[in-house]
Amino acid sequence: MITIVKIGGNIIDDETALNRFLEIFAQLEGPKLLVHGGGKTATALAKKLDVPQEMIGGRRVTSAATLELVTMTYAGLISKTITAKLNAMNCLSIGICGADADLLRAKKRDPFPVDFGFAGDLLPAGVNVKFLQQLFSAGITPVIAPVTHDGKGQLLNTNADTIAGCIATALAAETGTQLIFCFEKNGVLLDLSDEGSLLPSLKKEALQELSAGGKISHGMLPKIAAGFLARENGVQRVVIGNSFQLHEIVQQTASCTELL
Amino acid sequence: MITIVKIGGNIIDDETALNRFLEIFAQLEGPKLLVHGGGKTATALAKKLDVPQEMIGGRRVTSAATLELVTMTYAGLISKTITAKLNAMNCLSIGICGADADLLRAKKRDPFPVDFGFAGDLLPAGVNVKFLQQLFSAGITPVIAPVTHDGKGQLLNTNADTIAGCIATALAAETGTQLIFCFEKNGVLLDLSDEGSLLPSLKKEALQELSAGGKISHGMLPKIAAGFLARENGVQRVVIGNSFQLHEIVQQTASCTELL
Repeated sequence: MITIVKIGGNIIDDETALNRFLEIFAQLEGPKLLVHGGGKTATALAKKLDVPQEMIGGRRVTSAATLELVTMTYAGLISKTITAKLNAMNCLSIGICGADADLLRAKKRDPFPVDFGFAGDLLPAGVNVKFLQQLFSAGITPVIAPVTHDGKGQLLNTNADTIAGCIATALAAETGTQLIFCFEKNGVLLDLSDEGSLLPSLKKEALQELSAGGKISHGMLPKIAAGFLARENGVQRVVIGNSFQLHEIVQQTASCTELL
Repeated sequence: MITIVKIGGNIIDDETALNRFLEIFAQLEGPKLLVHGGGKTATALAKKLDVPQEMIGGRRVTSAATLELVTMTYAGLISKTITAKLNAMNCLSIGICGADADLLRAKKRDPFPVDFGFAGDLLPAGVNVKFLQQLFSAGITPVIAPVTHDGKGQLLNTNADTIAGCIATALAAETGTQLIFCFEKNGVLLDLSDEGSLLPSLKKEALQELSAGGKISHGMLPKIAAGFLARENGVQRVVIGNSFQLHEIVQQTASCTELL
């Protein structure tokens, strides 16, 4: 069983939390892979450098200047910081992005009707599974930054939840995979202020009802969408849970949300 | 024969020149590896972000803030830009730094008598040769950024010429290697303004005399020092030559400087 773990900004932006999470991740048994988001570093840098950030419908537009910042921070600083830490924890790891060894090939999003700039959508069969298997065979844990490429020399900005889902799906065709979205809550909550409102499991049919009723927070929807897509395409287990309970999630003893 | 090529800022900072060089590099036959320097991006970014740059005796002091900029630009933007371009040229490549798969392990330079901050000196046996061989076996060309780590989670800034020399030396213990330092001149010139003053070869004994007489430019000395060290430690061929004559250098038909 290969374990694919996704972490986001809340962990990345807090060094103490990041160290605590990585200690747990480093000790997970079996082949594993970490996909990280970007956190606030790119936005903070954009502000300092006066690179305007445009949002359309809650989604960021990736201008050429923003793509440079994203590549620097996600595929540079965050990637290498995590990798150096994991290597110090006896977890031999490598920090790569989708351009490396043609790992993740994407298509620049159609500029009509809305131009999101250098945003890329992963291509079907765009994951270089062979390369991941070579890394696993060498005992190396991939740490993957959410930057992809189009195969023609252009880097692209791609959603990290989607990347985690697509990698899990591509690996599932060869071997058992589980996909774990880690964040600061224990899972999907019906009431964000009440940890007791955790849904231990979620079916796609129920999601539509909950979502329409405004019970699922906006930020949670991309994870859930990527998770259900992965489930439908052969990923054996998809979980949304607390970063610091990663060990318990893998052991199946944690309070978390399983996507059925 | 494995070919290790080092390029510096003059190529990296000029996209047209970079594309032209990479087209030549991509077509080199046999296993190969590219080490790139940093260029002016980090310095330009430091200026924009008001990160003070301190120089002592012509060498940069790597503060914590400068290390972040170096990691972002060298191991992020430049690394991934080169990698995406090479992959588009049918040269399957991976952009990594010394922290990745424990590739290059270094020791933070002793702060006495002069504190250079987060500068790292490569350790003897600090090159993960096994990992490089795994990449070559998989048909993947490593593109290496001059950032190393200390094995305890700390990233370090390390001279790219030294890295190229140490990698060539480590690989030479297993197989034939040649090391080519590429830059904007045809080789070592006795008079920088006269390409006709090219030295077709250079012996270490002659170097000392030339250097004492001020005939070798300051910026050339680290390459020559790294080159002679590599020659003394088993690297079969070390050349200093023109980036755009890489093919001819490999074919041994170029005007260039061979270190004997």
